[in-house]
Amino acid sequence: MRTKLTLSVDAMGGDDAPQMTIEGVKLALIALPHVSILLFGDKSKMGPIIDSVLAGMQDRIEIHHTEDKVSSDEKPSSALRNGRNSSMRLAINSVRDGKAAGVISAGNTGALMAMAKFVMKTLPGIDRPAIASTLPTRRGQTVMLDLGANIDCDANNLTQFAVMGEVYARNVLGLKKPTIGLLNVGVEGMKGKDSVKLTAKILQETHLPIEFYGFVEGTDIGAGTVDVIVTDGFTGNVALKTAEGTADLVIHYLRKALASSPFAILGALIARPALKRLKQKLDPRRYNGAMFLGLNGICVKSHGGTDAFGFSNAIKVAADMADNNINDDIKHDFAELMAEQHPDDHDTLLEKNEKSEVPPL
Amino acid sequence: MRTKLTLSVDAMGGDDAPQMTIEGVKLALIALPHVSILLFGDKSKMGPIIDSVLAGMQDRIEIHHTEDKVSSDEKPSSALRNGRNSSMRLAINSVRDGKAAGVISAGNTGALMAMAKFVMKTLPGIDRPAIASTLPTRRGQTVMLDLGANIDCDANNLTQFAVMGEVYARNVLGLKKPTIGLLNVGVEGMKGKDSVKLTAKILQETHLPIEFYGFVEGTDIGAGTVDVIVTDGFTGNVALKTAEGTADLVIHYLRKALASSPFAILGALIARPALKRLKQKLDPRRYNGAMFLGLNGICVKSHGGTDAFGFSNAIKVAADMADNNINDDIKHDFAELMAEQHPDDHDTLLEKNEKSEVPPL
Repeated sequence: MRTKLTLSVDAMGGDDAPQMTIEGVKLALIALPHVSILLFGDKSKMGPIIDSVLAGMQDRIEIHHTEDKVSSDEKPSSALRNGRNSSMRLAINSVRDGKAAGVISAGNTGALMAMAKFVMKTLPGIDRPAIASTLPTRRGQTVMLDLGANIDCDANNLTQFAVMGEVYARNVLGLKKPTIGLLNVGVEGMKGKDSVKLTAKILQETHLPIEFYGFVEGTDIGAGTVDVIVTDGFTGNVALKTAEGTADLVIHYLRKALASSPFAILGALIARPALKRLKQKLDPRRYNGAMFLGLNGICVKSHGGTDAFGFSNAIKVAADMADNNINDDIKHDFAELMAEQHPDDHDTLLEKNEKSEVPPL
Repeated sequence: MRTKLTLSVDAMGGDDAPQMTIEGVKLALIALPHVSILLFGDKSKMGPIIDSVLAGMQDRIEIHHTEDKVSSDEKPSSALRNGRNSSMRLAINSVRDGKAAGVISAGNTGALMAMAKFVMKTLPGIDRPAIASTLPTRRGQTVMLDLGANIDCDANNLTQFAVMGEVYARNVLGLKKPTIGLLNVGVEGMKGKDSVKLTAKILQETHLPIEFYGFVEGTDIGAGTVDVIVTDGFTGNVALKTAEGTADLVIHYLRKALASSPFAILGALIARPALKRLKQKLDPRRYNGAMFLGLNGICVKSHGGTDAFGFSNAIKVAADMADNNINDDIKHDFAELMAEQHPDDHDTLLEKNEKSEVPPL
């Protein structure tokens, strides 16, 4: 029996909220018997849905009423200023106040990151939180970060992402010695961006017991060459969405091919259970739930357009992180990372390493 | 009947060269009756293969002997210095000297780009050539550039890539009014890198008759939202390889699913011709042949690990570019692009636009 866990849900975020979020909460409550949920949102809108969807589970939820919410097109800065009573903000506050172990929202990503960073703050040693998610691969799954929180990243940021990703893979995915790859345009040391080459150097030289594999390329994401893929938020976001679009394209071609002749249709009919399993395997809802790593608190972003099943998976991601106390582990590793620097030396890791030789482009 | 065309082939580049390249030349000669080929490489190695593979076609080839070649792991700078008599370099020289309309190599990409740029020079108005290729989409195909020639790109570079890509889509793919999208992490104007936002502004304001669609995301590559996708070489390379890896992954899952039960195997057997067509549709050899756009000459890079069929497609890409005089069209459009600037104003497009207001991140 796992220790009891309370999570906060922004019930008003997402395209079909609050219907979708409340149905997602139901699925999560069924799957996770140790979890209770604080639901933040408009009682007049949530009430009737809760009565019908969560009947018999009401002892495991607690409604926190607010009429305000963050709209999906609101700028992060405006949400920070004007959204102090929004369901998103109050749900985040509840984590800071120790009333919940983590928060889940399918609302505006930029606003969620800005608010979570402002309210929860980052963990010691971390300059910028990153968005991370697991992706399906040939070998199982790979954690990739950053997926869009930070457009430009220096070697310090990338090094921090590597450490956070490693902790997640070890602590939550249960891998003993997760391997870490740096996304680049080639595997040779001379290729790529300076920031990426410098990060490689830092990760090669660190005394942290992490398994740095070296550079990986885009093909290595699907191949599952490493357990953790580190990149800047621009590249990571494009790579993630390119993978989604390509999977859609191949499935589209497959559908067309299997409808192209009577024999194809018959074959598809006979192989239907197998094709259904393929569809399940690639179901983006199964991978829903992007983690904001590096915050002093657990915050998970669900896709806004997902359904109840997808949303329940985002809740499970937050529960997994909380069950495994991921942030304690990240704190511990960052304390070690920072202890690698001489105590009298105020240089950052980056500055220390910039003086060393970096191979030319 | 198309005008006769001579193309130069670096017969020694590629994993299985010269066997693979000579067999590729044969397939290209069959498919393209108006083409003749100059073959650059080691006569002692090529001779026996040519005798057996190209029997009866010897009037359409011309052998240019050299023992030197560029190795696949040679640095571009070293290839430039030491490879003056290499098959790659002599093949490139033949284009500069007007003996061939274009060159095709499956050798070292960096060396090929460095040599082609050094020997052919760039077209007027173009600072840096870009690597471009067509990709399969739901709607047909999309041209994407840059795929790895330029790690860092400013708005001037990206604008030039947009114009070159547009000319290729119009001139070679035969699209009347190709649409151009800028790869970004969101479609809203406030998101993304400064260089990308500035490029959007330039493309919105240009008087060139090009159809600028706006920002696109990774998912739009497979969806075929636009005809031309413009990005920097780092992002483009990662996106291209991520798409390749994801297609491989889905096919891997499909194979496993269709072998998972007797019914699945039977269904797959009955649907076999359709599944074969799917495989053909996704065959990377069909999309082999990356164009170096922006050079004062035609240069196409084949994948080093491809086979004869893939190599023949790279030759076809070069033939298409030459048949359509793509570089004349690029020259014309760049003359117009540059005429947009006031004749007395020596500012570049970039400098001109940097003064205008760019929305904040």
